[in-house]
Amino acid sequence: MSKTLISSPVIKRLPRYYRFLGELEKQDVIRISSRELSEKMGLTASQIRQDLNCFGGFGQQGYGYNVSTLRKSIGEILGVDSKNKTILIGAGNLGKAIARHIDFPKRGFELIGIFDSNPEKTGTTISDVNVLHIDDIQRFCNEHNPVCAVLCIPREAAEDITSRLIALGIKGFWNFSHYDLRIDHDDSIVVVNVHLTDSLMTLSYGLNSALNQN
Amino acid sequence: MSKTLISSPVIKRLPRYYRFLGELEKQDVIRISSRELSEKMGLTASQIRQDLNCFGGFGQQGYGYNVSTLRKSIGEILGVDSKNKTILIGAGNLGKAIARHIDFPKRGFELIGIFDSNPEKTGTTISDVNVLHIDDIQRFCNEHNPVCAVLCIPREAAEDITSRLIALGIKGFWNFSHYDLRIDHDDSIVVVNVHLTDSLMTLSYGLNSALNQN
Repeated sequence: MSKTLISSPVIKRLPRYYRFLGELEKQDVIRISSRELSEKMGLTASQIRQDLNCFGGFGQQGYGYNVSTLRKSIGEILGVDSKNKTILIGAGNLGKAIARHIDFPKRGFELIGIFDSNPEKTGTTISDVNVLHIDDIQRFCNEHNPVCAVLCIPREAAEDITSRLIALGIKGFWNFSHYDLRIDHDDSIVVVNVHLTDSLMTLSYGLNSALNQN
Repeated sequence: MSKTLISSPVIKRLPRYYRFLGELEKQDVIRISSRELSEKMGLTASQIRQDLNCFGGFGQQGYGYNVSTLRKSIGEILGVDSKNKTILIGAGNLGKAIARHIDFPKRGFELIGIFDSNPEKTGTTISDVNVLHIDDIQRFCNEHNPVCAVLCIPREAAEDITSRLIALGIKGFWNFSHYDLRIDHDDSIVVVNVHLTDSLMTLSYGLNSALNQN
């Protein structure tokens, strides 16, 4: 079955399957039924069967799913074995934490350079990756051809640099700046926005509702 | 209309409305139609009208929405003016970045303490908040009564500490540890999980699809 037929909600659930199956693997679980998997993940069993059928169905009637095989297959679909060259823009608190905290190679990415506009930061390294001045970015991209950029810069700066990065060959953006990056002119550019404060405000709503009930 | 009737997808969209309206306010935009708002947000106009009607409908036929009024109302619903006392567990790279990067007071939270099990970190401050040893947490909670905890610790540690924190009065969790925190025994506990690596793997899928199309 062609990958292009996979719907976006299914794709969004795949990393969760991958994570849960990884946990099961660590616990030496060899096989699991869709019912058991559904209980662990808080989805219905039929939802899980439907999701996994999108990829040609890895389950066997009466046996369930082989945990390692299923995890490996989902990993391949997600591309976790890729080595997409990636740069990170913005070596502030968040950028540093992302560079140090995220295991890029395990997710299909290779972090090859970090850029900042502050000359005091250039020349240092973060997690063994060199921090370079933002003015070096054109030379660096021409030389190393990164395809992905992590944006850990304020909104205005992110808006300014996006089209420059696209012109330099960047095809994917992991965007932590406080706005929804949308690339209107090119379908071949992929953007995943991370809005930490949106998530915090969702918690604020839920927490206030819970506190007011008591 | 009662808050309890608001569906979870609507609630998840509220922070985005709040963010977009904040941007419009900065640009001195006074009023906006649902059509204009829909174009900016990538939703349909009827979706927006439907969402906002959940709160009693702030729009006026032929006028649209007053940006400041609507933003203020959504902020009140989200509880951004609350001052929910919050502690952060784990002063590693991510915990430090969250403490420094997130503007808690603007989202309805007051960060009053940071905890770590590493004695070398205790006694320091991060963004003017004291870092205390995790062994101090019971005394601290009894004294200051925080209601919310940000978990920036590994999976195993998070699992261990959750029920302890609930016993100490924590009602809300912003969970950055690599697992889905689920509190089975108590509906009054609110959890928002943030899975950065899930988001990165979604990008991996999209990026690989885009690269293979070329």
